[in-house]
Amino acid sequence: MTAPLRLLLAGYGTVGQALHELIRDAGLSQELPVVGVVRSDGAWTDPKGLAPGEPQGEAPRDLDVLEALDAVDADVLVELTPSDLDTGEPGLTHIRTALEHGHHVVTANKGPLVVDYAGLTGLARDRDLAMRFEAAAGASLPIMNLREFCLRGNPVHRLEGILNGTCNYILTRMTEEGLPYGTVLSEAQALGFAEADPSLDVGGWDAAAKAVILANHVLDVDLALEDVEVSGIQALTPSAVQLARKRGYAVRLIAQASRDGTASVAPRLVPEGSPLNVAGTLNVVRLVTEHAGPLALTGRGAGGRETASAVLSDLLAVQERYR
Amino acid sequence: MTAPLRLLLAGYGTVGQALHELIRDAGLSQELPVVGVVRSDGAWTDPKGLAPGEPQGEAPRDLDVLEALDAVDADVLVELTPSDLDTGEPGLTHIRTALEHGHHVVTANKGPLVVDYAGLTGLARDRDLAMRFEAAAGASLPIMNLREFCLRGNPVHRLEGILNGTCNYILTRMTEEGLPYGTVLSEAQALGFAEADPSLDVGGWDAAAKAVILANHVLDVDLALEDVEVSGIQALTPSAVQLARKRGYAVRLIAQASRDGTASVAPRLVPEGSPLNVAGTLNVVRLVTEHAGPLALTGRGAGGRETASAVLSDLLAVQERYR
Repeated sequence: MTAPLRLLLAGYGTVGQALHELIRDAGLSQELPVVGVVRSDGAWTDPKGLAPGEPQGEAPRDLDVLEALDAVDADVLVELTPSDLDTGEPGLTHIRTALEHGHHVVTANKGPLVVDYAGLTGLARDRDLAMRFEAAAGASLPIMNLREFCLRGNPVHRLEGILNGTCNYILTRMTEEGLPYGTVLSEAQALGFAEADPSLDVGGWDAAAKAVILANHVLDVDLALEDVEVSGIQALTPSAVQLARKRGYAVRLIAQASRDGTASVAPRLVPEGSPLNVAGTLNVVRLVTEHAGPLALTGRGAGGRETASAVLSDLLAVQERYR
Repeated sequence: MTAPLRLLLAGYGTVGQALHELIRDAGLSQELPVVGVVRSDGAWTDPKGLAPGEPQGEAPRDLDVLEALDAVDADVLVELTPSDLDTGEPGLTHIRTALEHGHHVVTANKGPLVVDYAGLTGLARDRDLAMRFEAAAGASLPIMNLREFCLRGNPVHRLEGILNGTCNYILTRMTEEGLPYGTVLSEAQALGFAEADPSLDVGGWDAAAKAVILANHVLDVDLALEDVEVSGIQALTPSAVQLARKRGYAVRLIAQASRDGTASVAPRLVPEGSPLNVAGTLNVVRLVTEHAGPLALTGRGAGGRETASAVLSDLLAVQERYR
């Protein structure tokens, strides 16, 4: 048996708990023991591995992430705290510190990658540490691993896609039912498909952050959020959406980026037969490759279990490479 | 620099020549030298690596594939001879012999895999040799590498898709233009989209062979071609196709396989908004995963350069693993 890869989870919300359960359900608790969990209300540790679910037993310890990494001798920091696209914190400090102290990192957190992609990936490379983040953009869509492992020797020139399920849900209902934006948004909020403050989603910023991360990895560019031209869907009227439909198009919020370093997020007309024309909360990413033309990958772009499955795939890739 | 991986190409048609050119154009001639080419009219060898294109210089040597592997001390047999779905030959003997003599194998040839999937992959596993065949099913669609490298820890329960571009082209034109099957087939033959003997394509056998290979790898089953229930598209009438269209469906030749070992290829009704509803010569494969729901991959399912790009990706995976 390979040596276990000891995990410290920073953040223990929907994704963290789903990951912990996936590890248990797949019979991987010995190979991938969760030796610590750090939340805002304290840290729980067990060198033999914690069980999934609400932390039990002893009162939490007062440890920050770095202290916890040292206290439990973890191999990998799994960074799952909430994203802040402006500062990248607290994930940015967690990840940087973990790498500086020789720990691998797997994360689903967009913020640190948007704020300092080159710095974090460079730090990992210089120290021959893993820094994987498949779950940070497109949840279960394995775009970055597809590029790394499945398109070897085949450069990607451009990417485009639908990276925000909330916007796609709103646009789909505006198209199919002729409803106004505000009505669909309120219903989406009631159903839990949209946040109480929906501005990051409907303003296009969530999609732009994911486009930055994907582009930097897949196209090997060095984009920041301010390099992306961003327009949201707030100003779209039902009549514009219906008119497009009559002419054989759907209106979709399309993120795109090219190897020349240009990137945008904006509502665009997509022909009805196009692989980019997906409905509801689905996400899609289309990579234009040099030798095999365009490849499109469609799937669920959100969800705790879906996101956790991408984190698990990354952890198993770290295990294969370093154990 | 890593040690070179010396290639022997068995078969040197469209795919073989495209691969040879891709290797040169990517600047990989030192890392992946083509030290021999075996065609039906003889073998050309050069320990320093042959240049792409019609073999030049000396008269060909009278060597079979095994003799050529030994003569040039090749590391990898790249098997690209024409597919025979009944016997698997000559590729089956080439691959088996190469593995028995300690050579890695990368192939785009469906025949050997359909006839003896378990035997060939078992032989490779027992001897810790690479046996990769991404290009054998779905050309540039990296389904098998997606499963292996991008969905770690996420079991796949079912796959379904469009695996034959010729049938999809015919069905798309029957749908969009209301033309009869025979008319579209003749035009497809004139354009080079269909073979002079189209029975393998339109009868569903080409799709069935690809489904067997994909299912055996992705679902970890042990299917043979005779386990697949196969119906082709020959009997479809324009009126049936048009009626489906009026009701919001497209008729598509769908291959499907499940983990319980059942598999079929048959014309099916696909809803217009479904990711499986792709047009023209595109292929699509949808994997139903345990943790992330369905994932669909759409792209070009045929073409010399597209197929060669999948072979190259496999060769670089062998290099990473064994060098």
